[in-house]
Amino acid sequence: MVTNRKRIAVLGSTGSIGRQTLDVINQFPDRFEVVALAAGTQTGLLAEQVNNLRPKYVYAASRDAVIESAVESVSASWVPMAEIVVADDVDLVLAGTGGGAGLVPTLEALKVGKPVAIANKEALVMAGHLIREALNEGGGALYPVDSEHSAIWQCLWGEEEHSIRRIILTASGGAFRELEDHQLAAVTPEQALKHPTWDMGDKITIDCATLMNKGMETIEATWLFDVPMEQVEVIFHRESIVHSLVEFSDGSIKAQLGVPDMRLPIQCALAYPDRMPLPSAPSLDLANIGALNFGRPDIKRFPCLSLAMSAGAEGGTYPAVMAAADEIAVNRFLSGEIRFIDIAGIIESVLLEHGKAAVTKEPSLEEVLEVDAWARIVAAAATVGSQ
Amino acid sequence: MVTNRKRIAVLGSTGSIGRQTLDVINQFPDRFEVVALAAGTQTGLLAEQVNNLRPKYVYAASRDAVIESAVESVSASWVPMAEIVVADDVDLVLAGTGGGAGLVPTLEALKVGKPVAIANKEALVMAGHLIREALNEGGGALYPVDSEHSAIWQCLWGEEEHSIRRIILTASGGAFRELEDHQLAAVTPEQALKHPTWDMGDKITIDCATLMNKGMETIEATWLFDVPMEQVEVIFHRESIVHSLVEFSDGSIKAQLGVPDMRLPIQCALAYPDRMPLPSAPSLDLANIGALNFGRPDIKRFPCLSLAMSAGAEGGTYPAVMAAADEIAVNRFLSGEIRFIDIAGIIESVLLEHGKAAVTKEPSLEEVLEVDAWARIVAAAATVGSQ
Repeated sequence: MVTNRKRIAVLGSTGSIGRQTLDVINQFPDRFEVVALAAGTQTGLLAEQVNNLRPKYVYAASRDAVIESAVESVSASWVPMAEIVVADDVDLVLAGTGGGAGLVPTLEALKVGKPVAIANKEALVMAGHLIREALNEGGGALYPVDSEHSAIWQCLWGEEEHSIRRIILTASGGAFRELEDHQLAAVTPEQALKHPTWDMGDKITIDCATLMNKGMETIEATWLFDVPMEQVEVIFHRESIVHSLVEFSDGSIKAQLGVPDMRLPIQCALAYPDRMPLPSAPSLDLANIGALNFGRPDIKRFPCLSLAMSAGAEGGTYPAVMAAADEIAVNRFLSGEIRFIDIAGIIESVLLEHGKAAVTKEPSLEEVLEVDAWARIVAAAATVGSQ
Repeated sequence: MVTNRKRIAVLGSTGSIGRQTLDVINQFPDRFEVVALAAGTQTGLLAEQVNNLRPKYVYAASRDAVIESAVESVSASWVPMAEIVVADDVDLVLAGTGGGAGLVPTLEALKVGKPVAIANKEALVMAGHLIREALNEGGGALYPVDSEHSAIWQCLWGEEEHSIRRIILTASGGAFRELEDHQLAAVTPEQALKHPTWDMGDKITIDCATLMNKGMETIEATWLFDVPMEQVEVIFHRESIVHSLVEFSDGSIKAQLGVPDMRLPIQCALAYPDRMPLPSAPSLDLANIGALNFGRPDIKRFPCLSLAMSAGAEGGTYPAVMAAADEIAVNRFLSGEIRFIDIAGIIESVLLEHGKAAVTKEPSLEEVLEVDAWARIVAAAATVGSQ
């Protein structure tokens, strides 16, 4: 008997998180239903998803005959993302649309009190205060999808947020954890794109190698769990088995562990407050793994981590500037224009430049987008040391 | 302002858990109040506690002039344990009285719906089904005090019991984890009494070395968390940092970690459902610890573990027989009468002997106490292999 299926809007359905979300939904057809699909430019894949899942609402950033005909054949309606998320028959929004594009639908959903499973790093980094504001205003909820934040979230179930003493994010350390300084300088984009554990996009793989990704996660954690940056810490953990930890006010620590598989945090976010039995999920065999190793990140060799944590502690427009500068710097590295170790230098110089201007403490969405555009221009023009 | 202090009856106040419980209570005078103290034969220490804490009710298994005069001087009343626990002005019972003596008050408290912070291993091992029955009947609650069970309990906050796939108890491995078979045979009581991490009584230290203690903990876990023995597992973890883990039906695992200190689980049990800020509690520094190691217990070298798990799976009177036989066998080892490796042999032979008799599946308290007495006699008389 099919009863009370959770009706889900999947924003960013053709991306990595979106596709894995649809996998999870497919495994539990009596629990979930896709009511909306939204994607960018991968119209072929989107058309396929529309044909299979027959959603009521579809959005695509670019349209062509293939997607037009798919939408028509299942009698779906074209609806903008910001309208999809407020529809009465959407119970939960999976915000998998990357970058600034995913920010507005997330804000709109929260403002009307919808729960949002959030996989959009940039939205939280650029405009965490606006997301928190929308959350408080609308009484919605944020369910993290990142494996680290899902770990923290799971550790917080049944706990009070005011009992948090410390959030400890684990970092695999990226591809270059073991390299010497001079080796880091010589790293090629090809080497950087080999991530030890997770299979991800190019940008995020580089962000993992520089630890900028982990830095951004510290900022996300401050907004998701409403803690100041001084209560957030990063430790190296190369096995990627302990996904993160929370220390409570009485000294007790909880950790969440598991075989690395993005489908688990996605499933947690979709099913909350339930857990869904997945007999096929592999059991972690700790005795077989033998040892879990931990270490302190080397801030000197990986300056992006402290740049991000400082920007997060500073708040205001700093994190948006940092994120935009990082995106440009990573692109410049991937195109062979700058060295791996120049990425941090560019971000730092853009942040310094930004500090000279009037910095807004509680920027509006428009102000966030303005500094984002500004930082991109400055980062693209920034010169780096001799190669 | 002092408001709504939780009124606590401390049974076994002169034992290790009892004394540490009073330490915790002393740290939070505005949250807790001792209304009753009960102890065995350490009347001097009990009198001191009575003078300091001025409880309303006192019980002592043996009385002398010192304790009599202390009770009189604070105008306390002499009340049997089974009556203390049902008193209207007792909000929570700390059941720290060991052995069978602690069982009846635990049952009485649960039957009238009181929460019991349970530190009495034997009660759960001997008569877990009766405790579970009293719990269901009275609607009370059991808060574990053992560090392992507290870890599991904390991991279950905010979760549904039916989501448990596996409970993973960690074991430091005892004093002789690294010894060869022939070395195990030559172990002296003095060597056995040096436990690597926790400071405990003699009996339990030997039980740690044989892994019988861990075996008993598996039985306790089945009753505390209402899971069958096949969902309970033991792994070695020599650092004693990860106090135990729970695997859920979706494959996610939660662990509780901390600096080994019994006061934390005691405090959790007293304060539940709150956590109490303890700024002085040391922060665990995983990066500094470096590695957490795990391994599989060697069932062949430590047969007590599988004896206990089988007895627990079998249920009925088996666990009571096993616990009684173990107590006698450990005494015989401590007195130099048998070898370390003979402990398991004695327990096994008593269990085998018991299996030949009519085994009761749901024994009453009287039947439990009967087999307990029988097993002690048989274990005391059991012969062992040549030394």
